[in-house]
Amino acid sequence: MTTFFQKVEHIGIAVRDIHVANEHYSKLLGVPPYKSEEVVSEHVITSFFKVGETKIELLQATHEDSAIAKFIEKRGEGMHHIAYDVPDIVAAMQYFAEQGYTLLQQQPKRGADNKLICFIHPKNCHGVLTELCQEIS
Amino acid sequence: MTTFFQKVEHIGIAVRDIHVANEHYSKLLGVPPYKSEEVVSEHVITSFFKVGETKIELLQATHEDSAIAKFIEKRGEGMHHIAYDVPDIVAAMQYFAEQGYTLLQQQPKRGADNKLICFIHPKNCHGVLTELCQEIS
Repeated sequence: MTTFFQKVEHIGIAVRDIHVANEHYSKLLGVPPYKSEEVVSEHVITSFFKVGETKIELLQATHEDSAIAKFIEKRGEGMHHIAYDVPDIVAAMQYFAEQGYTLLQQQPKRGADNKLICFIHPKNCHGVLTELCQEIS
Repeated sequence: MTTFFQKVEHIGIAVRDIHVANEHYSKLLGVPPYKSEEVVSEHVITSFFKVGETKIELLQATHEDSAIAKFIEKRGEGMHHIAYDVPDIVAAMQYFAEQGYTLLQQQPKRGADNKLICFIHPKNCHGVLTELCQEIS
């Protein structure tokens, strides 16, 4: 077996109003968000909370064309994706492509929180949108 | 702020066929499940994979009345819950009840993987079914 995943980097949660959700998740998790960031290309505002070695990422759409807006319209607020930390995203993408996984990007793209990212289609992961992410050094 | 959550203990994923899902997740995560366990009271079979300090828990219903069967019927396979490790589940339950959260159990119940567990209603967590869990020592 080939192991690329070092840890669960974050869990993405789609929310309608990030200010309201920040307040609620600060109370739930007992910590404030350590970062808020807009990713203009993805039409989202994000905020991040640390829980151990993993992060909770809240995502609010800034445009009706955003994937997050479409997700919420279809399913309501809730868990959107799981992101795994990989040391070499290009090697991981090549491996998963060769293994027959459907990658949603052909090249790593810039994500929030200083990451290169690529998504694997939920159909390959029992309904779970799965993100590979590598910290940009 | 009061912090109870030490880490993301596991992420629960509802699947139709745990044997098929075990094979797929072994390939995705690059490790085999370290444990498989039936929780008769919950009508589920579970399996667990380690990724860093967190686990991926796959859940298959063994009865049509199982919460997992109802989840899949409504939403298909996918992310079902996030579980956070707490050092003292009774103290955490008391705190969240006092803060107005809706707990789905009044007393901790026995879960898979040697844990005492209690769920917080998704309505309090922006659509995320949230589990408190404490290792039984």
